Amino acid sequence: MKAISILGSTGSIGCNTLRVVEFLPDEFRVVALGAGENVERLAAQIGQFQPEIVAVKTDVCAENLLRLISNFKSKVPKILVGEKGLVEIATHDKAETVVSATVGAVGLVPTLRALEAGKTVALANKETLVMAGELMTRTARENGAQILPVDSEHNAIHQCLRGEKRLEVKRLILTASGGPFRTKSKLEIENATRAEALNHPNWKMGEKVTIDSATLMNKGLEVIEARWLFDFSASEIDVLVHPESIVHSLIEMIDGSIKAQMGVADMRHAIQYALSFPDRKPTELAPLDLAKLSQLNFEAPDLERFPCLDLAYRALKTGGTLPAAMNAANEIAVEAFLGDKIRLSDIPKIIEGVMDAHETLAAANLEIVLQTDVWARQFAEKISVEKSVAAGLT
Amino acid sequence: MKAISILGSTGSIGCNTLRVVEFLPDEFRVVALGAGENVERLAAQIGQFQPEIVAVKTDVCAENLLRLISNFKSKVPKILVGEKGLVEIATHDKAETVVSATVGAVGLVPTLRALEAGKTVALANKETLVMAGELMTRTARENGAQILPVDSEHNAIHQCLRGEKRLEVKRLILTASGGPFRTKSKLEIENATRAEALNHPNWKMGEKVTIDSATLMNKGLEVIEARWLFDFSASEIDVLVHPESIVHSLIEMIDGSIKAQMGVADMRHAIQYALSFPDRKPTELAPLDLAKLSQLNFEAPDLERFPCLDLAYRALKTGGTLPAAMNAANEIAVEAFLGDKIRLSDIPKIIEGVMDAHETLAAANLEIVLQTDVWARQFAEKISVEKSVAAGLT
Repeated sequence: MKAISILGSTGSIGCNTLRVVEFLPDEFRVVALGAGENVERLAAQIGQFQPEIVAVKTDVCAENLLRLISNFKSKVPKILVGEKGLVEIATHDKAETVVSATVGAVGLVPTLRALEAGKTVALANKETLVMAGELMTRTARENGAQILPVDSEHNAIHQCLRGEKRLEVKRLILTASGGPFRTKSKLEIENATRAEALNHPNWKMGEKVTIDSATLMNKGLEVIEARWLFDFSASEIDVLVHPESIVHSLIEMIDGSIKAQMGVADMRHAIQYALSFPDRKPTELAPLDLAKLSQLNFEAPDLERFPCLDLAYRALKTGGTLPAAMNAANEIAVEAFLGDKIRLSDIPKIIEGVMDAHETLAAANLEIVLQTDVWARQFAEKISVEKSVAAGLT
Repeated sequence: MKAISILGSTGSIGCNTLRVVEFLPDEFRVVALGAGENVERLAAQIGQFQPEIVAVKTDVCAENLLRLISNFKSKVPKILVGEKGLVEIATHDKAETVVSATVGAVGLVPTLRALEAGKTVALANKETLVMAGELMTRTARENGAQILPVDSEHNAIHQCLRGEKRLEVKRLILTASGGPFRTKSKLEIENATRAEALNHPNWKMGEKVTIDSATLMNKGLEVIEARWLFDFSASEIDVLVHPESIVHSLIEMIDGSIKAQMGVADMRHAIQYALSFPDRKPTELAPLDLAKLSQLNFEAPDLERFPCLDLAYRALKTGGTLPAAMNAANEIAVEAFLGDKIRLSDIPKIIEGVMDAHETLAAANLEIVLQTDVWARQFAEKISVEKSVAAGLT
């Protein structure tokens, strides 16, 4: 029975991970859960899965959680707080697989510590690799740790690469649904509301990643993630728009053969694959019925309407700290959009402004990456406020 | 440099095999070529590829061939005749890979001998496995020989299965273009002309396999072939109609993941894969462009309009000599249709008549299989003539 630790257990990926554990109780058990402020959901998870330790964001959260679980019949877990708490979750000595499913930069340090501890990391937090891909993959290599992708696209690539030799793979092809604005004009995208941007056609996900899907920045982050997970260069990673989100991604071999992985759009597939690897276990999900589905569509991405994808390629090609700066700028811009402070089309402008101003260094260590993150957030905030004022949204 | 021997070098697969060899002259060389009566084409192949031995159908063919090549500057190869000749081609001591690409039952004995000699067989002749799958696969196992599929569907399955464990594969899904009559009514199919049946939408192939594609018997033969190549039962092998012939086939894993292999519809892909395996080599073919292709369609096969597929499942489920009887009946029926002796809709009726009359035995050895083949051909001829008279086509 594999012991699982989850960073971000109350988020979308965290909850789906626990559904997989629930379905396969003979395969997996939960030893540690790290959450943020959603103590009600964490309390319920503690009651059901009985972890040994949990972590929450603040002391107040810890007090609230303790109140909620104090009359549980089962043993009360040890409650930890803040980043230090998440690091303990990530390095719990019994944990074999650590699911890294926090959103944004907060997962960086705990994930790095899990890799230093030689854990298998099921990685849903793509920002971790975008910010510090070289550092993360080097740390994994040096400590015999393994990074297994939970993002459906990278999970698909991982499955396609099974049994293939690296030098015989010509390129990776990440599919993108195209998001809610795939068929919209530039003007319609510019004036898109928060609700429209959050209305993803295929996937139920957290708000941050849903907005990233609407701008295609999500695909840009995934291109960078793929670079580090699979060691392919920017020119060997392509994006293909596929509105149905059934073909999760593809690889092209040097002999022209294309291998694709498909499935219904449910994150539990990729999560279960990462938890079970190198084995596969039965699923509770209904099988994909291609005859019923009847049609799959493909088109090239439009970089003019979705400039974020182009910005991500630029960041990847330059390398160093530029992807970290881009990622931080994007987090701030998305937050501002979700707070109705800026327009959707301001997001790429803010990112570009930060990237233009950033003096790229080698992303040699965690300090440089975190300094870049802090600087880029501040700079992005500044541009964001200017945009906000200009648009009369403040 | 891998030494190649080809059974059926002047046919569609044979010629495409030689185009692959021509493109990769540092990887492959030809040591033996077996053909039928097309001595002009064989002569040209001898001039270009300089095999050590060749085989033709009859003594007259051999004389004609000798006349054509006697003034070639290069050394004249040894010329053999008949099945004995094909067996020598199949067992040539220098040959590492034998491409089995004759059409119909004629390839049975030479292919069996190649497996007995421990050769790697690149198998395009699906009838071989339909007639004597158990015998062929047992012979391969006992002699350390390997069977690599050249049929695009099985080649796709072979690629999808790389890196996967047999027990974690739930089912195989063979795609079928649906042939020229996919959208036609039962009546239109009944009255289809020879030219209409030979007009395959996607693949350029020989006449026999093109008619088999029009009746879906080709897919039925492939279901039986898949059973033996990959050791899956009839209930674990499904057929999915996919008009574009881009997804060559798929596998479904126990965890719900579907893996597919795709490519442009050119037999050189599968041939090169089988020749190069376990390596992959660069291709001369243009890459598949899914964005340009734009759309892939899927539908369930219609067993009412295409009863041959159902007959093949029935033969596979019964097993023993029934698939061999079915295959022989189909060969006779297709020949009669190509000779304008029967209607397209008579093909399944002739096959069904033979299957109903056949007393199934265990397909224990070559003799029983060949006896079944002879009996079924005679019986099929008889029904075929009756149909022909009844339809006023004689």
